[in-house]
This record gives sequence, C-alpha cells and structure tokens, in this order.
Amino acid sequence: MSGRRIPDATVERLPVYLRVLHDLATTGQGTVSSEQLAEMAGVNAAKVRKDLSHLGTYGTRGVGYDVDFLSFEIASRLGLASETAVAIVGMGNLGRALANHAGFRDRGFPVSNLYDNDESKVGTEVAGHVIQHLDELGAVAKADIGIGVITTPPEVAQDVADRLVQAGVRAILNFAPIVIAVPAHVTLRKVDLTHELQVLNFYQQREGADAATQPDGSAAWLREI
Amino acid sequence: MSGRRIPDATVERLPVYLRVLHDLATTGQGTVSSEQLAEMAGVNAAKVRKDLSHLGTYGTRGVGYDVDFLSFEIASRLGLASETAVAIVGMGNLGRALANHAGFRDRGFPVSNLYDNDESKVGTEVAGHVIQHLDELGAVAKADIGIGVITTPPEVAQDVADRLVQAGVRAILNFAPIVIAVPAHVTLRKVDLTHELQVLNFYQQREGADAATQPDGSAAWLREI
Repeated sequence: MSGRRIPDATVERLPVYLRVLHDLATTGQGTVSSEQLAEMAGVNAAKVRKDLSHLGTYGTRGVGYDVDFLSFEIASRLGLASETAVAIVGMGNLGRALANHAGFRDRGFPVSNLYDNDESKVGTEVAGHVIQHLDELGAVAKADIGIGVITTPPEVAQDVADRLVQAGVRAILNFAPIVIAVPAHVTLRKVDLTHELQVLNFYQQREGADAATQPDGSAAWLREI
Repeated sequence: MSGRRIPDATVERLPVYLRVLHDLATTGQGTVSSEQLAEMAGVNAAKVRKDLSHLGTYGTRGVGYDVDFLSFEIASRLGLASETAVAIVGMGNLGRALANHAGFRDRGFPVSNLYDNDESKVGTEVAGHVIQHLDELGAVAKADIGIGVITTPPEVAQDVADRLVQAGVRAILNFAPIVIAVPAHVTLRKVDLTHELQVLNFYQQREGADAATQPDGSAAWLREI
C-alpha cells in the first residue's frame, strides 16, 4: 500500500468513478477520457485528473484511461480486491431490504450475519441466513465481520454499536436516526435518508420558481452512480 | 426568493447544518459559533461561513449564529417551510421501510401515496396508507406528489420513472440499482447503498495497515448528520 495520503473528498468520489467505469465496461467501451468520466460522474475534468493522480494514475494523452485497468486500480485502493463481510443488526423492513440487496454481494460485500433481539425473528431465515440473537454477537470471531450495519430503532442503536465494537468490528454504518458514539479506532458513517429528499426539494422548488437557474442535470448526475 | 445562486456543493451541506442545528436546539443551546458548527458538520469553519453567506447570513462577531433563526433560514431555503408529499413506488422491504420511516414525516416529507403492481399487495395497508395499483398513478393530481421515490426491482425502474414524469412529478429519488433517464425539467438523484460500504472499507483497511494516517474521526463526522 502506498504511503500517499488520499484526500477524504477524493475517497468519496472514487466509488462514483468506479460505478461509471463499470457502466462503461458493460457497454464494451475500452478507454475513457477524463472529460467523459467527469461528465458521467458529475464533476469537472480537472478534478477527475487530480483525483486519479492521487492513485498515481495519469492516463495517456489523446487516449484517456483504460477502463478495466482504472477500475482495477480504484477497486484495489478501496480495498475491494478482497471481500468484506457485512453483519446487519436489526431485521425490520430496512434490515431485510439490505440483506436481500444483491448489489452488496455483487460488489464485494457479502452479508455474513444477521442479528435481532426479537425471539420471534431469531432462528428464521432471511436471504439464506438464519437470524441470530443479538447476544450471540459477542461470540463472533473478529475476522468474520468487516462492517457492521445498524438498522435498529434509534433507542437501541448505541447499545448495538457498543456490542459491535466489543466484538471487534472496526467499521459501522448507521441507518438509525440518532447520533451514536464510537471509539476513535472505529470508523462510523451515518446514512440519513431524509438528506436526499431535502436536496431534491431544493432543486424542485427552484425549478418551479425559476427554471432558468436549474443546473443542467449536474445535481442529478452527481448522485447518478 | 432571492435570485442569488447557491452553489450545488453548498446545497449538499445545508441539510447537514440543519441536522446539527436541530441536535443543538434539542440540547437547549441558543447560539453556535462557526467553529462548533464546522466541527459537528465535519467541514472547516471558513467553509461554514462561506456557505451561510450564500444565504445572506453572517452571524454576530463573538456570539455566532442564533440556532433557531439559522435553522429557520436554512429550512426556508431548502423549501422545507411547507410540506412536500412523497409517493413511494415498489412496496418490497425497502419501500415498506421508507413508508414507515418516521423521520420523513417529522422533517416535512409526509408519505402520501404508495404504489405497487403486485395484485396481492394492492389494497393492503402499510403505515396507514392503502397500497394503490401502479396504473392509478396516472390519475393522481400533480400537486399531490412532490417527490417520487422508486424502490422497485431494477428492471421496471425506468417504466416507473416514466409514469412518475407522466403524472407530473418533477423530483425523483431512485433506490433501484440501475441508471434511469428523465427529461431535463425533472431532478433525479440516486441512492447507492453500496457507496457507503466502499468508503467505509477504504478507511477500515487503511486503519488496519497504518493507524497513524487515520483521520481523527472527520470522515465519520462528515456523514454524522
């Protein structure tokens, strides 16, 4: 692994480029210019070139980037060369939806464990996995869970996060609508489902009031990943 | 509405500030410095001041920003002063999870309509709403749906998007793992559930390889909204 530090903002965009490259590969396109990649990712071309230079990748003048090689490089840097097992805690509708999400397995994040504290759910099967009791989380081997996903009601989310940390999980994705705290060595991200609606609402109301100031699809492209 | 153009990047951060301000208000804090707001939002203070200046808001030297007033201003700019009704198409686990998500209603996005094309689901109730057949989408009044949310399987997502556009919906949030196209007057955003896992994975692997280069929680804070 290179000692070069990749800026956080670049890390955020790498999955977007990866998705665009995947779409290009699906259509059989072998090379891509920074301009095309930029347009499809919703950023400007200078930013694409700068981001990719952090990977030590510069493309070929007049040709661009090799789609397959660039995909491989980005995936490697994101640690996607090997699979990362995901445990989901909270088997309500959202937990079930994520457990059934084919995109996770297809993109290197197989679901390995499902947990709930509801006795009526424990022992039943979702997406081919038997739901385990939350108390069994302590017995899991550290290496078995790369990322813990919390899809519980907010009032138990902190307790679940504590249990995940206790079990040795070092990366947590929190869908519960509450702020939770984790030790510094654990990486935490939160998904706020309302965030997207708020941003959409901004553009929708502006569109209604003044169509001329609507950006030409760039906001849409930004997340069209 | 001011004619001043708010940069897209600022629009993306406004919901983050709003959530932080909400958390501060909950704890009873009346004013907030740009530094504290910045730290809690995971950006730097200069960016906060710049972002808020786009709203024509500059705070008071030595005091900071009034929490309630700033919340009101941001909410107004995001168009959150009035409610925006949300229709969800696709009543699988994800659609049900979103229909039951209390955060939508609490934050100004009441769910108004639920649709599916599965006859066994049509007529049943989720979160107090009767699921309607997709064919009834054409009969809905334009004003009744501010945002359309697509939670269908990928193979029907484009057809659903076309029907939403046909019904007059001008803002679409797509959870289906596929690229869909909409006319230029419609704002489209896509939620990629794997994106968060990929970014988490990057920090998790780097943490494992070289703990010293781990940013001190800033990546976590960025999405701790």
